[in-house]
Amino acid sequence: MPQLLRLRWLYSLLLLLPLLAMAADPLPSWYNGASRQAIEAFVGAVTQEGGKDYVAPAERIAVFDNDGTLWSEQPMYFELLFSLDEVKRLAPQHPEWKTQQPFKAVLEGDQKALAASGMDGMLKIVAATHSGVSTEAFIAQARRWLASSMHPKTKKPYTEMVFAPMLELLEYLRANGFKTYIVSGGEVAFMRAFAEEVYGIPPEQVIGTTLDARFQDKGGQLSIQRLPKLVHNDDGPGKPVSIDSLIGRRPILAFGNSDGDLQMLQWTMAGPGKRFAGLVHHTDSKREWAYDHDSKIGRLDKALIAAKQHDWTVVDMAREWKRVYPFESIESQ
Amino acid sequence: MPQLLRLRWLYSLLLLLPLLAMAADPLPSWYNGASRQAIEAFVGAVTQEGGKDYVAPAERIAVFDNDGTLWSEQPMYFELLFSLDEVKRLAPQHPEWKTQQPFKAVLEGDQKALAASGMDGMLKIVAATHSGVSTEAFIAQARRWLASSMHPKTKKPYTEMVFAPMLELLEYLRANGFKTYIVSGGEVAFMRAFAEEVYGIPPEQVIGTTLDARFQDKGGQLSIQRLPKLVHNDDGPGKPVSIDSLIGRRPILAFGNSDGDLQMLQWTMAGPGKRFAGLVHHTDSKREWAYDHDSKIGRLDKALIAAKQHDWTVVDMAREWKRVYPFESIESQ
Repeated sequence: MPQLLRLRWLYSLLLLLPLLAMAADPLPSWYNGASRQAIEAFVGAVTQEGGKDYVAPAERIAVFDNDGTLWSEQPMYFELLFSLDEVKRLAPQHPEWKTQQPFKAVLEGDQKALAASGMDGMLKIVAATHSGVSTEAFIAQARRWLASSMHPKTKKPYTEMVFAPMLELLEYLRANGFKTYIVSGGEVAFMRAFAEEVYGIPPEQVIGTTLDARFQDKGGQLSIQRLPKLVHNDDGPGKPVSIDSLIGRRPILAFGNSDGDLQMLQWTMAGPGKRFAGLVHHTDSKREWAYDHDSKIGRLDKALIAAKQHDWTVVDMAREWKRVYPFESIESQ
Repeated sequence: MPQLLRLRWLYSLLLLLPLLAMAADPLPSWYNGASRQAIEAFVGAVTQEGGKDYVAPAERIAVFDNDGTLWSEQPMYFELLFSLDEVKRLAPQHPEWKTQQPFKAVLEGDQKALAASGMDGMLKIVAATHSGVSTEAFIAQARRWLASSMHPKTKKPYTEMVFAPMLELLEYLRANGFKTYIVSGGEVAFMRAFAEEVYGIPPEQVIGTTLDARFQDKGGQLSIQRLPKLVHNDDGPGKPVSIDSLIGRRPILAFGNSDGDLQMLQWTMAGPGKRFAGLVHHTDSKREWAYDHDSKIGRLDKALIAAKQHDWTVVDMAREWKRVYPFESIESQ
């Protein structure tokens, strides 16, 4: 090999070095703080064959809330923003909505009346906008909306408002033999519209709020038709119930961000052996949002008290994450 | 190496040959008949990279009915035999059962009254005997029963009355990158009591009839309590509904044995690309049972007509299986 060529080859390698160093760090968006150390210590312990805390791969179940844990949830759950847009799109087919709350409030842009309809109103809107079509058609519509809408504040597509450190954590866990699940109050089919592409979580590992459905055979044309009836509200105590019903194993790691995740975290921690409970604490009013005890969306009050009491990991977003979203660059520490 | 030692080494190898030949055949309990050939052709086609029928591993979803497809179901569903035993065991805690049908019929051994209570009576018995305890306690009780009971005809434990050719098929599919699921009218927790050990199917891949449940926090003692209310009957059209809700992908292979599997087979076959639908036809009155159109348990009528019409694979148990149960020896062809 001529001298010059050999040097060029060496030079190319040198150029690659920073990239290689980054590839070697599975959690590049995390500062080396308490949360990162707790995560690494836990994963190290349960994967060390022959170690006292070893957990067989089949039992390495990790569950993640979605809204506020894997992606942002302000100023409103993104799925609710989708639902409000859907009310407007579907209004011509529903003349009765002009006089029916909470639909009337949505169509008239009456924020006050909408807020007054509360959780009950929200579930009505979700049921009405997530049904009346096949699962296939619904997922296609959710994808159209995700591809064509942008967040009111960042002007980014919603699927880019996912947390880079959490994407890295999901991948890090999978690389260590974990099976990663979403267990969320979001409706299952809506989340499946993007979970595999965005989070690397396949449809069969997405658990959430579910609507009733029926099998339809229309002259040989088969479909699963979605009905406007909630059959499971996957929030609070509904989370350990769906975990038990659908996974049939107790997770060894759970991550959430609000009081709706408390029972899932408690359930995860109540099993034998080494376990991990984590909370994303929204402390970053600059890069994301800062809210906890008093927030209407994603209130974190009881779960934060429980976390302090039981020494669970609380991720201080502002101090522990080098970046929040993948479209931001990684700051140097 | 001395001559003698070398010969001994060769001789040991020769002794191993029949064993190696068997290990090399992934389906030793299947005669080389039409069904086996159809299975192998299908698996070969969907796993051939670059081939026109190739299916990516993530999409290789295979669903199996349980009763009559993976294990026997005569003279009665095994889970129903468990439920009847449970009615007797739990009777002291339920004095009201002495006068309430269908429980009265069970306690008095009144077969006629029990039969008269029909499907509705059966579901009542299942709900009553599968609830009132935590999932953990229920699974422990199901395991105790399975470990201590025997089949009235064969005098074998129920978990040995599984079909050896189907165990081989499950393993063969998994070795070819398939994810194998149970989708059955059986109750989920009952099946999870043995599915992993017996079929190699983990709890998160067991789908079935489900009862309602609630999260209980009794002074810090957490549990999932089972309620006597059916929330999903995983039979007939309920099967494609649960597949869509819990897997979120359409299977490319489905196996059943009765009319309760018809919609699952139809749903599987209605997707694009290469697909496989199979039926276990109980034709073997000597080694197992022979029944189809007129059977009360596991009736195979409409699905058999559909299979002939659409050229689905129908396994003639008597002619295509070298053995039925793992405790039988493999006959020579």
